[in-house]
Amino acid sequence: MSIVVVGSMGLDDVQTPHGSVQGVLGGSASYFSVAAQHFAPVSLVAVVGNDFPRDYVEMFRGRGIGVEGLETVPGSTFKWRGRYGDDPDQAFTLATELGVFSDFHPKLPESYRGARFVFLANIDPELQLHVLRQAGGLKILDTMNFWIDGKRAELLRTLLEVDVVILNGQEARSLTGIANIYKACEVISSYGPKVIVIKMGENGSLLFTPEDVFLLPAFPVERVVDPTGAGDTFAGGFVGWLARCGRLDRDAYRQAMVMGTVLASFTIEDFSLRALMRATLETVGARAAKLHDMTQFPAPGGLG
Amino acid sequence: MSIVVVGSMGLDDVQTPHGSVQGVLGGSASYFSVAAQHFAPVSLVAVVGNDFPRDYVEMFRGRGIGVEGLETVPGSTFKWRGRYGDDPDQAFTLATELGVFSDFHPKLPESYRGARFVFLANIDPELQLHVLRQAGGLKILDTMNFWIDGKRAELLRTLLEVDVVILNGQEARSLTGIANIYKACEVISSYGPKVIVIKMGENGSLLFTPEDVFLLPAFPVERVVDPTGAGDTFAGGFVGWLARCGRLDRDAYRQAMVMGTVLASFTIEDFSLRALMRATLETVGARAAKLHDMTQFPAPGGLG
Repeated sequence: MSIVVVGSMGLDDVQTPHGSVQGVLGGSASYFSVAAQHFAPVSLVAVVGNDFPRDYVEMFRGRGIGVEGLETVPGSTFKWRGRYGDDPDQAFTLATELGVFSDFHPKLPESYRGARFVFLANIDPELQLHVLRQAGGLKILDTMNFWIDGKRAELLRTLLEVDVVILNGQEARSLTGIANIYKACEVISSYGPKVIVIKMGENGSLLFTPEDVFLLPAFPVERVVDPTGAGDTFAGGFVGWLARCGRLDRDAYRQAMVMGTVLASFTIEDFSLRALMRATLETVGARAAKLHDMTQFPAPGGLG
Repeated sequence: MSIVVVGSMGLDDVQTPHGSVQGVLGGSASYFSVAAQHFAPVSLVAVVGNDFPRDYVEMFRGRGIGVEGLETVPGSTFKWRGRYGDDPDQAFTLATELGVFSDFHPKLPESYRGARFVFLANIDPELQLHVLRQAGGLKILDTMNFWIDGKRAELLRTLLEVDVVILNGQEARSLTGIANIYKACEVISSYGPKVIVIKMGENGSLLFTPEDVFLLPAFPVERVVDPTGAGDTFAGGFVGWLARCGRLDRDAYRQAMVMGTVLASFTIEDFSLRALMRATLETVGARAAKLHDMTQFPAPGGLG
């Protein structure tokens, strides 16, 4: 089953305790699409300026990612400059230049309209709603504090039409004003989305549905080189696996959490999409098997 | 199989965002023994002053906990006064009065010497070594930053004779100077203990052995009323379950982590040992089954 992602495409400058890079491929649609494409066909909707390296477009095309919805317009590509200290869960934004992204009006090409999954990365909730109305299938949304704080009413309006929301713990707390993450999920569920995924970085992730709670630790990595894109990669692995399974049952959702976790564990091991692009179905499968092995136990019996 | 615990017995004053209590039962040996006794016979070695309420001694006796090694001597019982803010993983010590605990020279009564498990709670590592030499069976040790910083050489000497060490993440990092918790565990393993348990509070726990890594999320609770004793309760559930199983294989260790997690989830729901004492094999079993349900997933197949 096929997936459409609507999000940002950018060029990043990143400094971490392990080094720095300039002008590398970034943006939510990049990480998401390369992650999801491991499991199912993906097409992207994004905008870049005429400074965007054609090699990156060729890379997407070479991996089978649909680029019909990737618009190139005169001007500068979206740029983000950021820094991480010792805590990989905290990014410091040094500069953002929106460039052509400030006039982004996402349109789904006719050929995308049969997609069974639509992922709305963290763009303006009004644009997200505009896209939702052009799309069918399962609707998955990500957002960020900038919109939670600045366009709360619009975000709540959009959430009414969303099936799955993916947030980090801090965003879930901002959105609801509730510290206990499980209670926050109950409240978010009343906003519309019946499936809620909470990413907690090094502390794993949580899947909440009205019938089910699933808790998953993070995959241990030797060295977190650059956490940029981990959340969008997680979303890509998650949605990609659902599309591959073609079912939305409890097991498919739980395995989708595992695949999000595993793909994110590659992303953070190198700058930009480098490690994610080196991952293969074989290495992804090996990490999924290892995470299974590290988390399963026989139910303790014989107690009352 | 039977267990001996050597640790502190105290009276606590605790303030948390959910209220405060004065002069309530505390101390590592209290939490550990009540937790472990759910699964296996426990005897304790500790010292109290003649101000220690006899009701508490009767409570231990009434639950079948061996008190032959509980010495009462003239003077004041160990007292701890502490406070928690919104982060349950951070305790602030306001006052400590050692009282009779400052002259604690633990002796194992003759009748304890056949115990198959000895838990050394976080007392002076020289006393821990002294106890180890009187004991057989599996040796499990807890410690704290006070000893890691203040008696490092003595602690390392003691660790050479220990089978299992239980630490929190921050203690593991202090002990080794290594930030990556998995690498820190490898180094601790070279100090002697072949089994390492890392408690991470709200973020779950980790079991490390030379052959195995096991990751377990925390059990979700509605409200953390008082985190005091959570670590000693975890240790009690962990060691108690091993004693009940009578085996030291991979499944027994993994289930022991689950039982430590579950018993600690009761402790933090109320002040002192109140919620831990209300737990029954039935409610413990129900939470263990729920934690199993919340963490298990079918291995994703068909990948390379």
